[in-house]
Amino acid sequence: MIIESKIKEIRARSREQKSRGIKTALVPTMGSLHEGHASLIRAARKSAGFVIVSIFVNPTQFGQDEDFERYPRDFERDKAVCLDSGADAIFFPDVAEMYPDGPSVSIEVAGRMTEIMCGGRRPGHFRGVATIVGKLFIAVEPDIAVFGQKDAQQAAVIKKMTKCLGFPVEIIVSPIVRESDGLAMSSRNSYLSPAERASAPLIKQSLDRAAELFEKGERSPQHLKQAVANSLGGSPAIRTDYVELVDNASFEPVDGPLDRPACLAVAAYIGKTRLIDNILLGE
Amino acid sequence: MIIESKIKEIRARSREQKSRGIKTALVPTMGSLHEGHASLIRAARKSAGFVIVSIFVNPTQFGQDEDFERYPRDFERDKAVCLDSGADAIFFPDVAEMYPDGPSVSIEVAGRMTEIMCGGRRPGHFRGVATIVGKLFIAVEPDIAVFGQKDAQQAAVIKKMTKCLGFPVEIIVSPIVRESDGLAMSSRNSYLSPAERASAPLIKQSLDRAAELFEKGERSPQHLKQAVANSLGGSPAIRTDYVELVDNASFEPVDGPLDRPACLAVAAYIGKTRLIDNILLGE
Repeated sequence: MIIESKIKEIRARSREQKSRGIKTALVPTMGSLHEGHASLIRAARKSAGFVIVSIFVNPTQFGQDEDFERYPRDFERDKAVCLDSGADAIFFPDVAEMYPDGPSVSIEVAGRMTEIMCGGRRPGHFRGVATIVGKLFIAVEPDIAVFGQKDAQQAAVIKKMTKCLGFPVEIIVSPIVRESDGLAMSSRNSYLSPAERASAPLIKQSLDRAAELFEKGERSPQHLKQAVANSLGGSPAIRTDYVELVDNASFEPVDGPLDRPACLAVAAYIGKTRLIDNILLGE
Repeated sequence: MIIESKIKEIRARSREQKSRGIKTALVPTMGSLHEGHASLIRAARKSAGFVIVSIFVNPTQFGQDEDFERYPRDFERDKAVCLDSGADAIFFPDVAEMYPDGPSVSIEVAGRMTEIMCGGRRPGHFRGVATIVGKLFIAVEPDIAVFGQKDAQQAAVIKKMTKCLGFPVEIIVSPIVRESDGLAMSSRNSYLSPAERASAPLIKQSLDRAAELFEKGERSPQHLKQAVANSLGGSPAIRTDYVELVDNASFEPVDGPLDRPACLAVAAYIGKTRLIDNILLGE
């Protein structure tokens, strides 16, 4: 397993592959790798001859009162997941390498896509995401980059950033991986106490409740969102942050009757832990 | 002369050179090429085996009441200057090619560097500059990019953007080229009436006046700037927009006695035409 911490070195590795006609795929992560990340690495493995996993807990995408400091970090465990999943290299830079002059230069995706949902709840979050992903694209020069559908809004923002800045990178979005009880895999699940963990499957169940209504013909965004909120409201352990239904292409909220592929997304607090999840309707 | 209007095509040209071990230099311009641009192309020629001149009047760096519409455009003349100066290729995209989804994604350089001088007078200007230069770097993938010292603040912003985002591009800043009477060459000089043109050399003369004082030992930023303002005030045809003295490395205003290399910069209106100029002190 190749491990590089300097931009120059990882870029040289990527260019070496490119000069031999081999495609490079990047899987950007913040470490704390679980089966969801492993599935992204395997998806990258299918599409490219050389797979680089970046591990970097990006400070600019955390708000001041968020969990940057306590975000779980375990490089040796992450390395084992990378090996098992078929990665060729890990890019493991420190903050000074990625932000040599502090956070003064950023990539901004304007518009409703970054104002709604997590954009409204976490001001600056998607600026931090777009900035670090742009930097990683410049550092690694991948042909392909793989992101998870669990962070659906992030994937939409990154697709837009990639298109608008003209990065020659194909974006692959890989399906959500779930625990056996339906909970979407997330590094933040480790924050949950046993009692909180027991309540967590209700998030996916509430989305499934709306999906059932959709299957039966319900097309009202209001009714579909209300079904999720009502279902979540059934547990006193869960506090709903938002429920939103967006056009899956533009990531703009659907106002009228649902007539195109859409993403039904939810964010909810269980105790102090904020979890997100989503399902696709009409795909 | 190779002429490309599509990002894919110019990138393929650049990569073809790279695969043969030849360095590529980019000279970003808005066209209306004059002897100043020719000197940038010649500087690029000295440093690289393949020289690409981009010609693109970038809408996002113009304010609403500025001269985007009437900015001079003459592709055939520009092509002749490129040929004469030794360029190998011209990248001549349209607005839809560079902004496929409008101006919604931008690169922002925060801090005093973009707030003072032209940053304060032209809100959003440097966001537009940083964005288009970043897009051109992504499109052309140059090893070297050449900018003019005439736009000293722009050069500082681009250096910072390049360093912070980690573009593998060496930035060369090439000296100001002047008319025989000292006026810095600029595409906007063509806006001047004969009477206005006759007043224009006072801009450089006012900077020279301060340089004389500096040579004689004057180190007070206030006195040096006042000398420029007083000199410019001698002509009723000229309205000073700003006079600033900045650290030539950080591009932050010098407050105390001048003890390091600095850039003395001025912007002034002659009629409706806004011109900028600068000199280096203590280099």
